[in-house]
Amino acid sequence: MNQFNWDQAFTLDFDLNDGLSKHAETTKRYLSQMKDMYQDQQVVEEILKNDDPLIYEFYELGCPERAGDLAFGTTMIHPGKIGNEYYMTKGHFHQIVDTAEVYYTLKGEGYMMLENLEGDWKVERMERGKALYVPRGYAHRTINTGDEILTAFYVFDANAGHDYGTIETKGYHHIVCDIDGEMKVLDNPRW
Amino acid sequence: MNQFNWDQAFTLDFDLNDGLSKHAETTKRYLSQMKDMYQDQQVVEEILKNDDPLIYEFYELGCPERAGDLAFGTTMIHPGKIGNEYYMTKGHFHQIVDTAEVYYTLKGEGYMMLENLEGDWKVERMERGKALYVPRGYAHRTINTGDEILTAFYVFDANAGHDYGTIETKGYHHIVCDIDGEMKVLDNPRW
Ligand SMILES: [Mn+2]
Ligand SMILES: [Mn+2]
Repeated sequence: MNQFNWDQAFTLDFDLNDGLSKHAETTKRYLSQMKDMYQDQQVVEEILKNDDPLIYEFYELGCPERAGDLAFGTTMIHPGKIGNEYYMTKGHFHQIVDTAEVYYTLKGEGYMMLENLEGDWKVERMERGKALYVPRGYAHRTINTGDEILTAFYVFDANAGHDYGTIETKGYHHIVCDIDGEMKVLDNPRW
Repeated sequence: MNQFNWDQAFTLDFDLNDGLSKHAETTKRYLSQMKDMYQDQQVVEEILKNDDPLIYEFYELGCPERAGDLAFGTTMIHPGKIGNEYYMTKGHFHQIVDTAEVYYTLKGEGYMMLENLEGDWKVERMERGKALYVPRGYAHRTINTGDEILTAFYVFDANAGHDYGTIETKGYHHIVCDIDGEMKVLDNPRW
């Protein structure tokens, strides 16, 4: 369990190459924890018979959920696919919907899938040395389309909260797949 | 003038080595704009007779000052000294005092000087690959004690506002100087 005193200044290392900290533990998300989110349920079942791959990790540093505090850390999405669908994060809205988030990509390549409650959506490229603004009101999911870990430093309002449920019911309007070696954005067949 | 649509997702490059963006302009702070902040007024006057050195730069990206938005960018403090006092930023409180800020150092070395309204203070080391939490309530000033540019990525609440005046009147309780080649924290003689 990571613990810091957020009323005092402190520093924490995050390797600028792989995003990892030597002084904190990551939270880990395995396939079994998000198995309903992938399209190809047959492939999911097949994989889970023998294995439970690590899809992504991120740092939860225990920032108090107070107005004025900022939660920060890094996220590492591993490379891989479930069928032809790339490894991705669960994605979420913030509970206080109109709160933004800033990502700064350190390594790897991929996309952020964004979608608001009115169904407006956008997919933004993430790559080393690019900051990405997730505007107020948009659910956001990180997708690794590359061959190495995709890692980014992130900051958001500590009291924003996470709403996984709204987007979990049906998923996003679009999914991101590898079609004959190319990244394609497809309509989500479940919508 | 940097302009972005903060209601839509967007990306912006910041070089992971030097902090610079190819698609935005920095705001520049020259010695003449902060000449009263250094201890050795004789040296300041002497320098300004012939020159007006660039002390630091940072990106102001025009984020609207709305609740839920996050201002971000990089700051670059140049290496150098005024007398024995290292180049530094003006430093400020946030107008909404109880708002934090996150820095992630990309290159160089230096310190963050922190001080709250009760006079509690701390100096925290900044170096490549270290994130720094500026807690709610603390004025913060970045100081470059190294030989190269000190650059960091930063994020803060867009509606926090900047209060330069409170700390400008007398300065911080402490100053950071090079004494015989070593960084020393000294009492501010003006206090
Ligand atoms: Mn988020
Ligand atoms: Mn600030």
